[in-house]
Amino acid sequence: MKKAVTLLSGGLDSATTLFYAKKKGYEVYCLTFDYGQRHRKEIKSAVSIARRAGCKYQIIKIKLPWKGSALLDKRISIPKRGASGIPVTYVAGRNTIFLSFALSFAETIGARDIFIGANAVDFSGYPDCRPGYYKVFNKLSRLATKTGVEGKAIKIHTPLINKTKKEIVLLAKKIKVPLELTWSCYRGTGKPCGACDSCRLRSKGFKQANIKDPAI
Amino acid sequence: MKKAVTLLSGGLDSATTLFYAKKKGYEVYCLTFDYGQRHRKEIKSAVSIARRAGCKYQIIKIKLPWKGSALLDKRISIPKRGASGIPVTYVAGRNTIFLSFALSFAETIGARDIFIGANAVDFSGYPDCRPGYYKVFNKLSRLATKTGVEGKAIKIHTPLINKTKKEIVLLAKKIKVPLELTWSCYRGTGKPCGACDSCRLRSKGFKQANIKDPAI
Repeated sequence: MKKAVTLLSGGLDSATTLFYAKKKGYEVYCLTFDYGQRHRKEIKSAVSIARRAGCKYQIIKIKLPWKGSALLDKRISIPKRGASGIPVTYVAGRNTIFLSFALSFAETIGARDIFIGANAVDFSGYPDCRPGYYKVFNKLSRLATKTGVEGKAIKIHTPLINKTKKEIVLLAKKIKVPLELTWSCYRGTGKPCGACDSCRLRSKGFKQANIKDPAI
Repeated sequence: MKKAVTLLSGGLDSATTLFYAKKKGYEVYCLTFDYGQRHRKEIKSAVSIARRAGCKYQIIKIKLPWKGSALLDKRISIPKRGASGIPVTYVAGRNTIFLSFALSFAETIGARDIFIGANAVDFSGYPDCRPGYYKVFNKLSRLATKTGVEGKAIKIHTPLINKTKKEIVLLAKKIKVPLELTWSCYRGTGKPCGACDSCRLRSKGFKQANIKDPAI
């Protein structure tokens, strides 16, 4: 069985990506980051989802000595409505940090494929979620690694990148993602807030797919 | 004063790069990684060098749950002579991990420049030390960040990349790098072993420059 590494945050998109990779026949190793985010709820969700999927998982603890994002600094409010431009929830270099660990992990375990649930349609406008970024990261992967030098570069797959949130919900349903275990809200309160960017995008997807969100 | 981030391992090349960036007029912030390497001697060297340079510094602690390199796993011997191909001291994805943190840090503090002492002449053959890798990382920097989207991409500088070790030693001498504080040996024993790849390259440089290595 071919090995793959999947980045798993515990949200709808990453959970769908994990089940997608499984469906494609990979033995999936999940990688979750405890990077000082506002709450631990999404990490708990990630662990539950990885266990439900029957996959091995690793939690990488990263202590960034800098903040500058509403997801890292509780003194910065999470915006209630989507604003134009890149929002304050942007974490500088986040996906580059995550993918660099995934690259290291994949090469070490002999995996040739990395899956990430990045999306550039119904998204918050983060620059490191756009297709061009992944195109260049794949170039970097070939140059950065021993594997790449040997002509067997590790590939980053972004199966959801061009899908609407509705399409993601429908795909998730089809491939039996345990949607009730996923957590998308930027806040870690008892119930999803329903107001943050992430909740609004998720809610829109479920509504348009005409499916009740089982996590609410 | 323009801010810059310099990756500082505590060795000859990174110390020279730090003093080079200072000489260019930057206010330098040093970034050192405690990533599970065999010994802590190089971290102590990095701290001494940053202090001597009068620079702010951060130590990032990373706990990789995987090994697979002689620099991370004491059960793998450090080779005594340079072998052909990429040696067992190669750490999968290392510079990509380091640079991704540097990118995050630089963007957060408003620095537009990152300096790294990578070298592709007298080096161990690590793929992530070659010029092509940095060319693509600079492309990635433009796409990955808010700064890049705004047209003010953070640039990775590799001032030593095409220099011989002799030229690096001569430059270090000229710009008054405290060479006695640097530590290049892959082992962390009392004195540099003189046999590992890193010691051999350093020793060759000092010999060819006709300078006595003050760290021995």
